[in-house]
Amino acid sequence: MKAVEETSFQPNAIARSLVNKETRIIGVMIPDISNSFYSNLIYGIDSVISEYDYSMFLAISDEAVEKELKYLRLFKEKQIDGVILASIHFLEGHIQHLHEMEVPMVVTGHDLHGYQVPTVNVNNVQAAYDATAYLISQGHRRIACVSGPLWDPPCGLDRMGGYRKAMRTHGLNVPDGFAMEGDFTPKSAYEAVKKIFEENEHENELPTAIFVATDLMAVGVLNYLHDAGIRVPDVVSVMGFDNLEMASLARPMLTTIHNDPYMYGRAAGEKLLKQLRNEPFERLSTVPHDLVIRQSVRAIR
Amino acid sequence: MKAVEETSFQPNAIARSLVNKETRIIGVMIPDISNSFYSNLIYGIDSVISEYDYSMFLAISDEAVEKELKYLRLFKEKQIDGVILASIHFLEGHIQHLHEMEVPMVVTGHDLHGYQVPTVNVNNVQAAYDATAYLISQGHRRIACVSGPLWDPPCGLDRMGGYRKAMRTHGLNVPDGFAMEGDFTPKSAYEAVKKIFEENEHENELPTAIFVATDLMAVGVLNYLHDAGIRVPDVVSVMGFDNLEMASLARPMLTTIHNDPYMYGRAAGEKLLKQLRNEPFERLSTVPHDLVIRQSVRAIR
Repeated sequence: MKAVEETSFQPNAIARSLVNKETRIIGVMIPDISNSFYSNLIYGIDSVISEYDYSMFLAISDEAVEKELKYLRLFKEKQIDGVILASIHFLEGHIQHLHEMEVPMVVTGHDLHGYQVPTVNVNNVQAAYDATAYLISQGHRRIACVSGPLWDPPCGLDRMGGYRKAMRTHGLNVPDGFAMEGDFTPKSAYEAVKKIFEENEHENELPTAIFVATDLMAVGVLNYLHDAGIRVPDVVSVMGFDNLEMASLARPMLTTIHNDPYMYGRAAGEKLLKQLRNEPFERLSTVPHDLVIRQSVRAIR
Repeated sequence: MKAVEETSFQPNAIARSLVNKETRIIGVMIPDISNSFYSNLIYGIDSVISEYDYSMFLAISDEAVEKELKYLRLFKEKQIDGVILASIHFLEGHIQHLHEMEVPMVVTGHDLHGYQVPTVNVNNVQAAYDATAYLISQGHRRIACVSGPLWDPPCGLDRMGGYRKAMRTHGLNVPDGFAMEGDFTPKSAYEAVKKIFEENEHENELPTAIFVATDLMAVGVLNYLHDAGIRVPDVVSVMGFDNLEMASLARPMLTTIHNDPYMYGRAAGEKLLKQLRNEPFERLSTVPHDLVIRQSVRAIR
């Protein structure tokens, strides 16, 4: 007990945690802190766990599989009490680490089919469907889409899938080149829409509306249209997704899908706390989404 | 040693840290993670410390003195190896905790006169002076200012001070009501500029340029001018501060002061690492600032 004695001059969380097996630290992993979706997710998680005197060990993975695995090893070593993982990969190595860690866990952004991991998610397919169906209800027929990258299931596959499903259900065609893939940056969306407008010169071949899978990329779309002198929503309507602060700071203000990352973070934090306190919880919960109508979409005909 | 043995089934960072007295955790405290200045500061700090296998214990204080003190206690308890504090208060209790902690420390945003704490800072007075002097060099004489809140020395007192100093040095008057205080939100800046334009109806009483102490608030100013039909930069020029991503996403793109929070974070991380590795370091370092000329300022007369 010598080591313990030596450090006992102050309430010693480290020595104490050897007895309690509790560190009161939650590991949180996100791909990118400079993206305000994730910084607000962190804010939501922190607002819940700090109320119960848990603190946050933050791991930023830069979307790199190796960094993800390194941090999972570190989480295990530090004996954190629980883990929240937002939008990371799930390969063999990940599953292995998570299995060995044996701590409560919440995943956001994916549902890991076959693994029964507690998950907080948005129904991205349905939300993208609703966004597109709203554009259709406003009279739009030629609707383009800029999705997230296809390797990211929620923003890529799911939101593109919801768009395609809405078009199909309403008997509408997706013309060649109208379903574009961005990489989350405003610049990628700027370039994607530029391509659509430069390759289709006849007015009746151009989209009258564009569904964009994230607000950050929607700002890139608004900027292309501004720079090209194409008025929004007079000539083209733009629909975003996320309802970040920038959606109401943009001019025209973005019509978008409310998918509040702060509330999303709170829901993940609460699901983890329930596990830590041995309270009953639902494995899978879905954060509700909403349509927020502002200025960037207009009814035609 | 029983407790240590019990947990020795895996590399045990907790048991090991009782011997090494090293946790390889850095405590980082910021006031607000939803502000992209701080999320990018975090990104910069993380990019440096993670290279050297340190990880981050993140504390979000919400600008509340009590939370700051709580986290400082927690940092002490968790025996973290070092601390980076961004824009927190410094009262008796803070100084006391920091003194007792006896770990390497870096402060950003303030220089704590009289305490000799290692500090990374921007010369806010000089940068605000340079921003205002640039507006003057472009022929502007009636220049208004929206500063940060005065309780925040860097964005409030210092940036307002630099603006006043530039006006005085150039023999220019600051008319009543032209030096306004915002609270960091775009809305507060929107309302401040609205007040200036509604209270001064004669064209020759209105400002031809506005210096705004943060880009986030500058977007609020651009939005008021947009909504009121006042063209930027044709009628009024707008100068921001920070050079966040939103500065180049805004339309017109903001002319601003480059004060990159990512580089700022890297500088803070490096100064801490030097202390941890017993390398020589300068107590006080200043991150250079630059003028970034884009579209929101024009020359008059």
